[in-house]
Amino acid sequence: MKDFKNDFRILKEKVNGSTIAYLDNGATTQKSFQVIEAIEKYNKLYNGNPHRGAHYLSIKATELYENARKKVAKFIGIKDSREIIFTKNATEALNLIAYSYGMNSLKKGDEILLSITNHHSNIVPWQMVAKKTGAKIVYLNCDEKGQIKKEDIDRKINENTKIISISHLTNVFGVVHPIEYIIEKGRKYSATIIVDGAQSVPHMNIDMEKLNPDFLVFSGHKMLSSMGIGVLYGKIERLEKMEPFLFGGDMIEYVDLYDTSFNEVPYKFEAGTQNVEGAVSLSSAIDYIENIGIGRIESIEGELLRYTVEKMKENKYIEIYGGDDLTNRKSMISFNVKDVHPHDVATILDSDNIAIRAGHHCTQPFMKYMGLNSTCRASFYFYNTFEDIDRLIDSLKKVRGVLGYEY
Amino acid sequence: MKDFKNDFRILKEKVNGSTIAYLDNGATTQKSFQVIEAIEKYNKLYNGNPHRGAHYLSIKATELYENARKKVAKFIGIKDSREIIFTKNATEALNLIAYSYGMNSLKKGDEILLSITNHHSNIVPWQMVAKKTGAKIVYLNCDEKGQIKKEDIDRKINENTKIISISHLTNVFGVVHPIEYIIEKGRKYSATIIVDGAQSVPHMNIDMEKLNPDFLVFSGHKMLSSMGIGVLYGKIERLEKMEPFLFGGDMIEYVDLYDTSFNEVPYKFEAGTQNVEGAVSLSSAIDYIENIGIGRIESIEGELLRYTVEKMKENKYIEIYGGDDLTNRKSMISFNVKDVHPHDVATILDSDNIAIRAGHHCTQPFMKYMGLNSTCRASFYFYNTFEDIDRLIDSLKKVRGVLGYEY
Repeated sequence: MKDFKNDFRILKEKVNGSTIAYLDNGATTQKSFQVIEAIEKYNKLYNGNPHRGAHYLSIKATELYENARKKVAKFIGIKDSREIIFTKNATEALNLIAYSYGMNSLKKGDEILLSITNHHSNIVPWQMVAKKTGAKIVYLNCDEKGQIKKEDIDRKINENTKIISISHLTNVFGVVHPIEYIIEKGRKYSATIIVDGAQSVPHMNIDMEKLNPDFLVFSGHKMLSSMGIGVLYGKIERLEKMEPFLFGGDMIEYVDLYDTSFNEVPYKFEAGTQNVEGAVSLSSAIDYIENIGIGRIESIEGELLRYTVEKMKENKYIEIYGGDDLTNRKSMISFNVKDVHPHDVATILDSDNIAIRAGHHCTQPFMKYMGLNSTCRASFYFYNTFEDIDRLIDSLKKVRGVLGYEY
Repeated sequence: MKDFKNDFRILKEKVNGSTIAYLDNGATTQKSFQVIEAIEKYNKLYNGNPHRGAHYLSIKATELYENARKKVAKFIGIKDSREIIFTKNATEALNLIAYSYGMNSLKKGDEILLSITNHHSNIVPWQMVAKKTGAKIVYLNCDEKGQIKKEDIDRKINENTKIISISHLTNVFGVVHPIEYIIEKGRKYSATIIVDGAQSVPHMNIDMEKLNPDFLVFSGHKMLSSMGIGVLYGKIERLEKMEPFLFGGDMIEYVDLYDTSFNEVPYKFEAGTQNVEGAVSLSSAIDYIENIGIGRIESIEGELLRYTVEKMKENKYIEIYGGDDLTNRKSMISFNVKDVHPHDVATILDSDNIAIRAGHHCTQPFMKYMGLNSTCRASFYFYNTFEDIDRLIDSLKKVRGVLGYEY
């Protein structure tokens, strides 16, 4: 098996004597040397303000930026690259939909269907829309394993459901939601369907032709790329009808003193100087991912997840959330160590250079619904190894002892 | 005189046999090797998701991000770094003010005072606010040199003036507007004052204590830094009262099913994963600029501008906009070559590897007001040299000949 870590300097670097077992990929991933070099090359040879210049560097930057757009489109299986809009992160993409579509289309009595498992970025913008339009938020609930039941979907989608906005892969338990079923149901009532792919797009194959949602959002930094670059996919006929969100240069056609006509999609939604470096970085990240293949990434992470669960089950003080059945589960695991606060677990693991996340993972409604205060989360990417998991498991054995508990 | 170009690989790189005379700094600047190395170092050693982790890389990223905030504050002479909010660009910063403050504070009859010289990013968001609130946009006009007259300021600021949003240094003629006077007048009527410092902050000393505006915006990429990072300065008492703009992770305090309480300033305005690399890059750019000194940058650019005007005046086919008096002028020059469209000028100059900008420079209302269709703009930074200007001047001599005109 290839040691991908050779391409990731940060994973080979020793901090106080050992490398970092980086298991916080659900928060942000690391960059391969190819991605770092692509950024460097851009900065040293091609940096210019795109779309606005008739000189070499501006033309070069435009080319790189627009090629990145085409690459993103191809990566998620979209033919028309005008349907790809660059944002600063997935959060901005969701806010763009909330402001430009939600605020201008909903009215009192309309329902916005969310999942209780959604990340805050896919809840809080909708609360704002609900307050300002009078629409009502309805939540799909989940079982103790974090899975949404078909009966709940059937019960909650109806003629009032105007927007459905759902995490594809949830960011605490790592549950793949049945979005095919949700989309099929939603379509019957002509609901607008938004898929939050921040966790899924980097980790699993997504058949956009089959799924056919109205919108999909994801972030570059969770798939080897720079921070500061996110993606909004939207159906062209939707985007063309929507009001712009951010106003300024490049997104206009003609500005008069008191009125403005807007540029065509996608430029209508890209005001001001865009993050070309970010787009270049995302483009290089996609090359790297495609070179491995999403299928292989899924299978590596599947093995890592199975191995982690097996090993964790040997420690009677560890509680695994979502259970040990890995059906519809991917890429991460939430757990707690009996009697120990997750933040203490993370801190003790950090002293062994093992990076996990502890907290509410920006999902307070879900945590409250599950009766949890916070969890530990280990989240994987293809570059993780069984050795990383062994280090995690070994370090977890020590946690209770450090705090004076039986272990 | 130090050859700053030694620090900028892109300015030393040969493209088809010669280096690029880069005179498009008003659009975007280039990065010194120190800035490029700072980004690389971050990506190779410290990359993590800030604010959310109890592990080394997350802690390191938080430290770098928050230190960048402190450095930006110090750079513009602000004591309380909570008043610095990172955005993706100056355009987002202006939209943030328009949505969070403008939309929630204006009503019919209120006036928004803009300058006719403003960039689109400081016009179009206000048109949206005016349309949605019933407020009225009023423009400060300018004379044939692009300068705003005190009489016009006196005439247009009154008790209905609720917001004044003005470019400090204009981006076509390079005129420094009398913002001290505008702010003093505006204060008398308790207007909220927004300064667009996108062109001024990188090029001139700004005494924030003396000016004391409510808001100031600028962009990293116009001052040696990465794209994808901008700055909003706002008075803490303003920011604390304002509604959030983008909703999501990190900007919340507590999220309930139907309601959310928000984090404190500045986090309230920074939803989702922020561009830590961009902040690191901006921090390194500020180090570089402070090492030279803004005063020295002003004086270098002043000499370049004087030299350019002198040389251009020797060519009877060149029309310099704003005249040859350089009082209140900085950092750039707009001009046209008689009978030749600016885009043709830029294209012919590009064949000599001279990068200038041609067009409306995202200021259509200004262009129309001045009776111009488009202009050529050469914009400087401290790394430009007299040789760059000589190349510009020589190449300009050829332009008419290439198109078959007398020269």
